[in-house]
Amino acid sequence: MLDAIIIGAGFSGLAAARILRQAGRSFLLLEARDRVGGRTHTRWLNTSQYLDVGGMWIGPTQDRMYALAREYGVEWYETYNQGQNILDLNQRIRTYKGLIPRMDVVSLINIDVVLKKLERLARNVDVRQPWAMPKAAQLDGQTLYDFTRRHCKTSDCFKVVRAGLETVFACELNEVSLLHALFYIRSGTNLNTLLSIQNGAQQHRLKGGMQTLAEKMAEPFRENLRLHHPVTRVVQNNQQIEVHGENFRFDAQRVIMAIPPPLISQIRFEPQLPLIKTQLLQKVSMGIVGKVMFVYEKPFWRETGFSGQVVADEHQPFQTFFDASPAGGEYGVLLAFCIANRARSFFALPEAERKSLALATTTRYFGPQAASPQHYADHCWADEPWSQGCYAGLYPTGAWTNFGHALAARTNRIHWAGTETSDIWYGYIEGAVRSGEREAHEVLQTLL
Amino acid sequence: MLDAIIIGAGFSGLAAARILRQAGRSFLLLEARDRVGGRTHTRWLNTSQYLDVGGMWIGPTQDRMYALAREYGVEWYETYNQGQNILDLNQRIRTYKGLIPRMDVVSLINIDVVLKKLERLARNVDVRQPWAMPKAAQLDGQTLYDFTRRHCKTSDCFKVVRAGLETVFACELNEVSLLHALFYIRSGTNLNTLLSIQNGAQQHRLKGGMQTLAEKMAEPFRENLRLHHPVTRVVQNNQQIEVHGENFRFDAQRVIMAIPPPLISQIRFEPQLPLIKTQLLQKVSMGIVGKVMFVYEKPFWRETGFSGQVVADEHQPFQTFFDASPAGGEYGVLLAFCIANRARSFFALPEAERKSLALATTTRYFGPQAASPQHYADHCWADEPWSQGCYAGLYPTGAWTNFGHALAARTNRIHWAGTETSDIWYGYIEGAVRSGEREAHEVLQTLL
Repeated sequence: MLDAIIIGAGFSGLAAARILRQAGRSFLLLEARDRVGGRTHTRWLNTSQYLDVGGMWIGPTQDRMYALAREYGVEWYETYNQGQNILDLNQRIRTYKGLIPRMDVVSLINIDVVLKKLERLARNVDVRQPWAMPKAAQLDGQTLYDFTRRHCKTSDCFKVVRAGLETVFACELNEVSLLHALFYIRSGTNLNTLLSIQNGAQQHRLKGGMQTLAEKMAEPFRENLRLHHPVTRVVQNNQQIEVHGENFRFDAQRVIMAIPPPLISQIRFEPQLPLIKTQLLQKVSMGIVGKVMFVYEKPFWRETGFSGQVVADEHQPFQTFFDASPAGGEYGVLLAFCIANRARSFFALPEAERKSLALATTTRYFGPQAASPQHYADHCWADEPWSQGCYAGLYPTGAWTNFGHALAARTNRIHWAGTETSDIWYGYIEGAVRSGEREAHEVLQTLL
Repeated sequence: MLDAIIIGAGFSGLAAARILRQAGRSFLLLEARDRVGGRTHTRWLNTSQYLDVGGMWIGPTQDRMYALAREYGVEWYETYNQGQNILDLNQRIRTYKGLIPRMDVVSLINIDVVLKKLERLARNVDVRQPWAMPKAAQLDGQTLYDFTRRHCKTSDCFKVVRAGLETVFACELNEVSLLHALFYIRSGTNLNTLLSIQNGAQQHRLKGGMQTLAEKMAEPFRENLRLHHPVTRVVQNNQQIEVHGENFRFDAQRVIMAIPPPLISQIRFEPQLPLIKTQLLQKVSMGIVGKVMFVYEKPFWRETGFSGQVVADEHQPFQTFFDASPAGGEYGVLLAFCIANRARSFFALPEAERKSLALATTTRYFGPQAASPQHYADHCWADEPWSQGCYAGLYPTGAWTNFGHALAARTNRIHWAGTETSDIWYGYIEGAVRSGEREAHEVLQTLL
């Protein structure tokens, strides 16, 4: 019998496996896909060009990610962040430098007030128990939309705040509880951190792509890894826990679950999971984000003084653009985020139409050179059966106050990891790693 | 190859099967449980006493239910509705007659204003497209809690309205979108109808229990019914659709799905269901209701002038009580509804503690005679793996405006029934029947 079985080889499962390996414990790491990395994935276009189609950024206070990159010898580099930004508002393109868009001053002040207000509220959250903050019932009884609509006094203010927050949460603002939004902000330090490149969550990328790190982490325990092993049933009793799939069964003392919430509901548990966990699982839904990427011979926009960054209102197919070129700018990559309702519309189109709409959009922003990329790629994470969405699970209204931390609560021999169980950097790769390490340490305690 | 396969033998599946049978079509009706009836279930205590542990009431405008009862020769009778009601507020019991509780006049007027306001808003909903009503974005961006909290000016008003609405929706008020609540109200005619016995959704019960009707409906096509047949995979192509379970496979031209939303996510569909449907399925969660029942030799409370009806605030374990005795009052049944957070707390207790808490509560209301029932029974529908909750699926904020009727939309050879796909009497048995009949007729069209 094994000491432990880890289900899911995303960053959370890999981080857990690493700890068990170091402790000399016997374990298996089961993964449904044909690769490790989960919601991160680096796609190689040829031997020298790659795209990070999943999670790709790290930033200050994501200490575990920097430590792992250092340990495995993966270098990081600065996200390109110079030159003019673009604001596409009411079908009109405006360019501006720095953090302050070219808009009427009332809307500008309004934006500042709304974001500061959110920030101030978030500061009151204790991430270990968001339901205990002052006025938690009211905050969890309303949506982020409700809050934003009430505090944005001009329509332009609302449009800009909305596109920004949609990019942070990967959902429509009416799909998430205000309390969850505050928790999420606090969990990732503060709102400014989540929105920023410089000193923010988008500051750095890994050379060779995020999956390079995942692969290197998996390297020492390749023989413990089983790809193409989707789990269908988990049975626990006083002696052990059994993990079943279509053609396999493994037994262990402990299981660490490190998969996204909607996938948990697809596994049969015997005995059934506690009511409070299954009910919460019915409520947590995944965000929906598509990444739309354009590869060019060079990051040509830099030469004409553009940063590659865009914020666009709901008339446009994509909320935001970033420069996602590799470290030295050997070739150019523009990355557009297509989120929530915009993703549901865009990805309902056939590929040829998506491509032509995407090229028309990017050409509007960056001129005719943008019309002919070497390569076009788009990917909607909600289409992936083994993720069902990105970036993370979202708590609707009522979930935190009625269910608390039920998602993370241990159920006998099953330990629950995954970024959605992390108090710190919930929804980010850093949160995944922290949760995996946390549960691995807990398992080691029980094995002593 | 069969003409059709119906998945789920609740009222929706039975109603569909009935139509296909009448049209002389070949079909199978697959059911995971060992019985028909779905979220209705009549439990026989002995040869003469029964309890309706699931859905049990019908009322005016539920025309299909009355027509079916008539057709199958099942009689109905009036829910007992005379005498004093009880209001348990701030640990104090007050009795009153009729519809108006004994409370301070400000709270009474406030209750009236809040319910009328809800009612007025609901009147604007077009049930075929709730997302198109005036201010739909605002209404779907807030919760029923938010609305109720804002319009209830006294704490007693809030307590009473809350207990009433929790009983209607089977959830905490912060778990449901205001727009969904309005749709639900309109779908069941109006709020007064949903709250009332007389001329309302609780007016009538079936003699012999609700399952009597389900059984009689199933009788003519017993040979088409397969119990213990949970479906795990559905594969469709240009020629046909295959329905797989652990030890079976059936092929047909069409499938009618008639199961609760969370169970749909547990089936593997090939090709995958459209994104908009799978995403909505991640968001729709089931209400949670437990029925707590006390069987006595006689409905003794009637003799002392009580109706058996109670409304109790959040300090008490149950929201509401009703007299659920059989037609002639041959024996007495008190029924308590235990809903949402109260259910999550109550059903986390061991059975002996539940029973003693329940008896203490009912004794407080109806005196020492209530302390010694012949029989005690409680049942939490969220514990049933083949329902996962009751009464119905709930739309959180953002679901109606972002996803519309995606739940009911046909996907090639799969037709979607179940009460959650019904515009009329959504969440009620009537809605289940109507949806099953609607999809059966649609299937017949495609078979012609």
